[in-house]
Amino acid sequence: MPEAKVTYVTGMQFVASSDSGHAVVMDAGPDAGGSNTGSRPMELLLMGIGGCSGMDIISILKKKKQDVTGFEARVSGTMADDYPHRYTEISIEYIIRGRNISDEAVKRSVQLSMDKYCSVKATLEHSAQIRFTYRIVED
Amino acid sequence: MPEAKVTYVTGMQFVASSDSGHAVVMDAGPDAGGSNTGSRPMELLLMGIGGCSGMDIISILKKKKQDVTGFEARVSGTMADDYPHRYTEISIEYIIRGRNISDEAVKRSVQLSMDKYCSVKATLEHSAQIRFTYRIVED
Repeated sequence: MPEAKVTYVTGMQFVASSDSGHAVVMDAGPDAGGSNTGSRPMELLLMGIGGCSGMDIISILKKKKQDVTGFEARVSGTMADDYPHRYTEISIEYIIRGRNISDEAVKRSVQLSMDKYCSVKATLEHSAQIRFTYRIVED
Repeated sequence: MPEAKVTYVTGMQFVASSDSGHAVVMDAGPDAGGSNTGSRPMELLLMGIGGCSGMDIISILKKKKQDVTGFEARVSGTMADDYPHRYTEISIEYIIRGRNISDEAVKRSVQLSMDKYCSVKATLEHSAQIRFTYRIVED
């Protein structure tokens, strides 16, 4: 059961530490009374979906003996206009860099993550429509 | 529109950087082929809900002229047994430390965050039942 402790520091700055022993600083921007010393809480959700699916995709491509030399997920979120501004849409572009990468292997790895493995996606998709594309770059 | 870029580093390690200019390291544990050099992606969601609601609660208590000397949110998540293990429940305990803190002010600030303001809560509640309690500690 994942756990996190979020402690108030000063201004709008908070530091979160989790079960696994790592800390993340969060802060609001100056527009919301903060000092921008850390990530916005809503940004953490986008980071989470990128990291979670990235781990799936990298693992699967390694199993499929693909020669991956780089990977990036570009994630953007659309929030509802009205309070409480939940995410209504999240778009992810996966960029897989490598040598002789199989399009079929990439397509399958992304699909497996989105449909079967990624816990963050499976949590967020109940609020936000998740859209994704991928692009292979020959290295 | 919030954005994040998640880049693969090595093993199961990824580094995410967001629009606001901050970076977060994510990694899997040794049980999942990682080296535990950063937070689990699913932990980021718990950190996010704690930070988001913490900012609301602190802001409201300041407006209500409450003498808050400390604040902590303890967040835990319950994941579904089956793949993709989405969050089905998230529990938060808010601990507000201060001098002559009004129970009514705390209750109201927590309610306002949960019902009206917290974007992370509003996103996650479509997958997970969100439970919360609060506790005031006299300083």
